[in-house]
Amino acid sequence: MKIIAAPNAFKECLSAPDVASAIAQGALNIVNDLEVVCIPLADGGDGTTEALVAARDGSYMEIEVSDPLFRKVSAQYGLIDDGQTAVMEMAAASGLWRLAIEEKNPMRTSTFGTGEMIRDALDRNVETIIIGIGGSATTDAGIGMAQALGYELLDSENQPIEATGEGMNQLKKINSTHLHPRLKQVKIYVACDVNNPMLGPEGAAPVYGPQKGATPEVVKILEDGLANVADCWIRDLNVSVHEYPGSGAAGGLGAGLMAFCGAELRSGFDLIADYAQLDHALEGASLAITGEGKIDGSTQFGKVPVGVARRAKQMNVPAIALAGSISGEVASLYEEGICALFSIVPGPVTLDEALDQAELNIKRTTEQVIRLWLLKN
Amino acid sequence: MKIIAAPNAFKECLSAPDVASAIAQGALNIVNDLEVVCIPLADGGDGTTEALVAARDGSYMEIEVSDPLFRKVSAQYGLIDDGQTAVMEMAAASGLWRLAIEEKNPMRTSTFGTGEMIRDALDRNVETIIIGIGGSATTDAGIGMAQALGYELLDSENQPIEATGEGMNQLKKINSTHLHPRLKQVKIYVACDVNNPMLGPEGAAPVYGPQKGATPEVVKILEDGLANVADCWIRDLNVSVHEYPGSGAAGGLGAGLMAFCGAELRSGFDLIADYAQLDHALEGASLAITGEGKIDGSTQFGKVPVGVARRAKQMNVPAIALAGSISGEVASLYEEGICALFSIVPGPVTLDEALDQAELNIKRTTEQVIRLWLLKN
Repeated sequence: MKIIAAPNAFKECLSAPDVASAIAQGALNIVNDLEVVCIPLADGGDGTTEALVAARDGSYMEIEVSDPLFRKVSAQYGLIDDGQTAVMEMAAASGLWRLAIEEKNPMRTSTFGTGEMIRDALDRNVETIIIGIGGSATTDAGIGMAQALGYELLDSENQPIEATGEGMNQLKKINSTHLHPRLKQVKIYVACDVNNPMLGPEGAAPVYGPQKGATPEVVKILEDGLANVADCWIRDLNVSVHEYPGSGAAGGLGAGLMAFCGAELRSGFDLIADYAQLDHALEGASLAITGEGKIDGSTQFGKVPVGVARRAKQMNVPAIALAGSISGEVASLYEEGICALFSIVPGPVTLDEALDQAELNIKRTTEQVIRLWLLKN
Repeated sequence: MKIIAAPNAFKECLSAPDVASAIAQGALNIVNDLEVVCIPLADGGDGTTEALVAARDGSYMEIEVSDPLFRKVSAQYGLIDDGQTAVMEMAAASGLWRLAIEEKNPMRTSTFGTGEMIRDALDRNVETIIIGIGGSATTDAGIGMAQALGYELLDSENQPIEATGEGMNQLKKINSTHLHPRLKQVKIYVACDVNNPMLGPEGAAPVYGPQKGATPEVVKILEDGLANVADCWIRDLNVSVHEYPGSGAAGGLGAGLMAFCGAELRSGFDLIADYAQLDHALEGASLAITGEGKIDGSTQFGKVPVGVARRAKQMNVPAIALAGSISGEVASLYEEGICALFSIVPGPVTLDEALDQAELNIKRTTEQVIRLWLLKN
């Protein structure tokens, strides 16, 4: 009998591979000749690199890059498929987590470090790059990344602009003469989870700017800058991507990856599940156990448990979800293929206790799920 | 398909009938043509009366009795089987919950009110009395109860003693001449959960005295008093019950009920499960769902979930346990017939939140249990 352990990370406590491993151990504690296939997953946010490196038995590269404020830091990305594919998260270099609260300022931050990671992968002759773009500290339409990849971004006096949020307004000309020779040879897939366009009231500046430190005045300056960059793309690169759903992700990096790199935006879950070969694993499985730190009313929108359940349902595999916390209306999840869902906490506990004991509690709850599932009814 | 909902109360939040009802509703939310039989249970402590009145569709009597300090209070007991059987808890009259912290004092407290409840039931011509004796405020070997039932308890000057913990040392003679005429005609079953003898280091005074307010000096006085009462039983009533397992329950009321009333001590769970006709309900059932507020290492010792699981196992009915909190080593419960156990809390919550939401959480968890159980494996 084969069981699939296909969870997301439990945020702030366990990575997806660790959750999958705890599920596997719990199941094997009950049935020791079970085949448990671990498929750690992610939705394009936090944990994307770790999930795919684990699922595809890859390795990590550690390189020096620029953080959102151009300070040198060490960042990791992954290589899978014998080094043919790089897996990275923009947040590894350019994430909000890199900044102290008082440093948050999308006028000053840049995706330059993300460009350095991509450049490093190009230098290593990868053929494909998968990049998750959640958790950014930036609203620069990817001009920082572009600069690191060799694009010359010039102002009205033909001088290089500073590739930050504030710098977007100075952009007058994009010169592609010196860009990285391999950039147009690789396929870049962007794991994206939001549908926002780059401009307008649902765009990158008004919707995501404030959480990165933008005041209402700054939101307006950023919006003007993003619009200016979009105009330059049309004029100099002959691409119009700023209305594309997801172009507003990561402060316009979604659009920037399309415009500067010819990247393709995809649903984070689907992209990662495909690379992790979830469907192949589900073939002939008797049960899929998925999970995420929180399951709530938003889980149906592209989150890992529902993604797993939908694919499992198509293959007639029942899916069970575990969560650190269940809240809100979850009945809609049944339609998606989640047959039952259980909280892993053993009683009234604080959040800290729950985080501390998550691994044990996942094992214990999986044991109970398997015991109940094995009952004849 | 028939399912049995056979839980204990969830202490401090839901009675056993309410828990059973929440389980039933959760199950019926998933399968609406299910037959769910509710068998609310208890182990002889808190909730014994309520469970049996609900299980046997009985009614309540409300009468005036003496509290442990001889103050007049209103107390309830139950009548089932068309009034042939009374169901009561000593704690309804003589429980520790009746006292403020500063009033706790086993030298001054008495089981007199428990005797008044029994007397009331005798006056109503019951043939059987079931009495749960958990939660007592007293250590009087049942002499208070005896006095209320007509026993004359006399000191060395042939004067009536005060029937309290302190009064035990004055007892010199028990006169049975004027006792209630129906006392020896009824059968009294005592639902008892502890195995302590009345005297000695494992006895009523040293083990349970302190939680009722006894200092080490008072424990010694009570021990002497209990021993004196035991001597009087042998001399005047010709019974020796003070070594009997359970005789030390409720400050020696276990022994007192045997000596003064010819009562029979039984395991609380078994007595109540028999009266609630649990075995009959389990016949032909597909699943039993039990539960208790806390499931921990002590659950295997006579608690309701294990009691239900043992009986279910004998009839090849799988048992699932729900709990507000699961802690400690519970693997031994599997041996007893508990197939799987689940906490009902949905995530990190405070105790107050858990108590507030218990009914909803029992329903929700039961829904998930039924959904998983119905999966083909």
